[in-house]
Amino acid sequence: MQNFVYHNPTRLVFGKGEIAKLGALIEKDRKIMLIFGGGSVKQNGVYEQVKAALKDRDAIEFWGVEPNPKIETLRKAIALAKEQKIDLFLAVGGGSVLDGTKLIAAGAVYEGDAWEIVLKGYADRSADYASVMTLSATGSEMNAGAVISRGETDEKFAFFSVKYPVFSILDPQTTYSIPSDQLANGLSDIFVHVLEQYMTSMGQSRLMDRWAEGIMQTIAEIAPKVLDNANDYKTRSDYMLSATLALNGMIAMGVTQDWTTHMIGHELTALTDIAHGATLAVIYPATLSVLRESKKDKILQYADRVWRINGESQNEIICKAIAATESFFRSLGLKTRLFEYGVGEGIIDKIVNRFEERKTILGENGDIDAAVVKKILLACK
Amino acid sequence: MQNFVYHNPTRLVFGKGEIAKLGALIEKDRKIMLIFGGGSVKQNGVYEQVKAALKDRDAIEFWGVEPNPKIETLRKAIALAKEQKIDLFLAVGGGSVLDGTKLIAAGAVYEGDAWEIVLKGYADRSADYASVMTLSATGSEMNAGAVISRGETDEKFAFFSVKYPVFSILDPQTTYSIPSDQLANGLSDIFVHVLEQYMTSMGQSRLMDRWAEGIMQTIAEIAPKVLDNANDYKTRSDYMLSATLALNGMIAMGVTQDWTTHMIGHELTALTDIAHGATLAVIYPATLSVLRESKKDKILQYADRVWRINGESQNEIICKAIAATESFFRSLGLKTRLFEYGVGEGIIDKIVNRFEERKTILGENGDIDAAVVKKILLACK
Repeated sequence: MQNFVYHNPTRLVFGKGEIAKLGALIEKDRKIMLIFGGGSVKQNGVYEQVKAALKDRDAIEFWGVEPNPKIETLRKAIALAKEQKIDLFLAVGGGSVLDGTKLIAAGAVYEGDAWEIVLKGYADRSADYASVMTLSATGSEMNAGAVISRGETDEKFAFFSVKYPVFSILDPQTTYSIPSDQLANGLSDIFVHVLEQYMTSMGQSRLMDRWAEGIMQTIAEIAPKVLDNANDYKTRSDYMLSATLALNGMIAMGVTQDWTTHMIGHELTALTDIAHGATLAVIYPATLSVLRESKKDKILQYADRVWRINGESQNEIICKAIAATESFFRSLGLKTRLFEYGVGEGIIDKIVNRFEERKTILGENGDIDAAVVKKILLACK
Repeated sequence: MQNFVYHNPTRLVFGKGEIAKLGALIEKDRKIMLIFGGGSVKQNGVYEQVKAALKDRDAIEFWGVEPNPKIETLRKAIALAKEQKIDLFLAVGGGSVLDGTKLIAAGAVYEGDAWEIVLKGYADRSADYASVMTLSATGSEMNAGAVISRGETDEKFAFFSVKYPVFSILDPQTTYSIPSDQLANGLSDIFVHVLEQYMTSMGQSRLMDRWAEGIMQTIAEIAPKVLDNANDYKTRSDYMLSATLALNGMIAMGVTQDWTTHMIGHELTALTDIAHGATLAVIYPATLSVLRESKKDKILQYADRVWRINGESQNEIICKAIAATESFFRSLGLKTRLFEYGVGEGIIDKIVNRFEERKTILGENGDIDAAVVKKILLACK
């Protein structure tokens, strides 16, 4: 096991009706900015619950943070926040709204242009922020990371805030009205979050392996029910909790990670607008296929423990495990090949060029360069 | 899933050589009390590492917190802390030293006698405290609970502090010199911590079930290596991490709990001085046996997932699961029957009388009273 520090101070407030407690979680003297996406919170009742809970508070509203939140939009919120001297930013929505909020909170106490924070990769200062989540999948509600896009250059990068959400309220009922394609993308995102922290060298931490497998087993079990039964509270609770615990550091203690699929996926979204979770369903099986030698032992463990796969040879088991992974994504209704999206060599070359130009090196052993990325993308065709 | 709040702000600093970072974790202006047990930290080098890391700091020492820390000892530390205006209490040792430190930190800012805090069950104020752990097993390094004894009345009660440890440093190398009987008690304690959060009604949280099972599988796998190989860093890392994650709230989200075995065990320790982990090995199989009907479905899941038990009938599987649990404790070298400790009806009656007098009701469904406790104790004979 590698040395590590685990420190996650977010207060997770989980369950039916918990949005009503919002007032008690925010000090009376805070000047609040409520940050929203496109308006679905007005249909599902979340907006009303938030407003009722904060009825006597000093709060302004900012609307319009889009999926894959764009710096162009966030700059407007930052300017407004500085003008209004906001000191608590409350995201009300899904992972994109919260990711945008993380940059707004950091940008509000930063003198330069907030895109500089994204390019640097971290914010060493930030105002306080918190969230009321509707769709959880990104795990943003209990970590310090965010992914921000820049429309004018089709770029998309992650950065880390110095602060975690002060609190995040998750009421599984808020997911009832989410369209099934977004739920499917969410399931894909959660599953791959776990894989990117798990599918590395063998034998680093028995317990982290078990916990990662536990989330994957849970997601595999509940996926059909999540997609079929909108108002099944039990299943939606398992879904929301799995999403949060998949990316809050609890399965990352003392182990290496390999975020290759996410890094390629971000480029694919930036260049094509394919939804984030959907890109992962295309890329992950190909990543596993290309890296099957270096990840062999872990794939065998994954095959046995997550999918209960048997076989006459290691080769057969590995092939079956990769096939099972692709089948799982297809069972969500997701495409798993680039051609199904009409993505061809042109986009592949653009992505590979970006990795080449940036000299990006990925993988838990630092051996995945642009040439390997190209192999992975060609295997997605 | 039940509604819940998860909030654990402790900074967990884990790995080889991490004690050297102690200085960076404590603000320069703190007035520190170092709190120790009987002196084993002088043999294993931990004392020297701590002193070296804090060489230019304002720190006094308090020695002599015993296993099952006694209020009579802790009162002395509290008096000294008040006199010296201590504002950070650093436990250096195992779970007992840290439990004692939690009461010292609370008592230092409490006007009355600290035993009142224990009887009340919680401290609503506390000074800051932190830990450098040697033996971890109690999970105290990442929670707010503590168990305190009173020598003059043979009483032992748990209380909860309003504060969590600011940080806890865990270097698995510090466990190398721990005697094997203490390691065995620790393994038993960890395993039963998990069971008391797991063995309740079925179907509350798929993920919490998986994570609890993951800790139990890990402990079952590593137990022989923990006991046989003192200097096996990998195994000791798994051991230490499992201990911490077994009782820091991470497997308790949204699920009911049943601490019957611990509550009976505390009385047994208070009246006989049998070590805490050792009492659990005696009581847990009997608890399972007496409650086999109400916990039937969960025992079947536990049998399948933790022990891979098959059988022709549910009854057979449950019998085998209870036997496997008792065998596991015996494999640690622990006794599993009261007669092996020479404990007879006299002690059993005393314990049952205490539950009767206090009108204690236990169990996730609130149906375990003194009469059921008696059945459990008789089943331990």
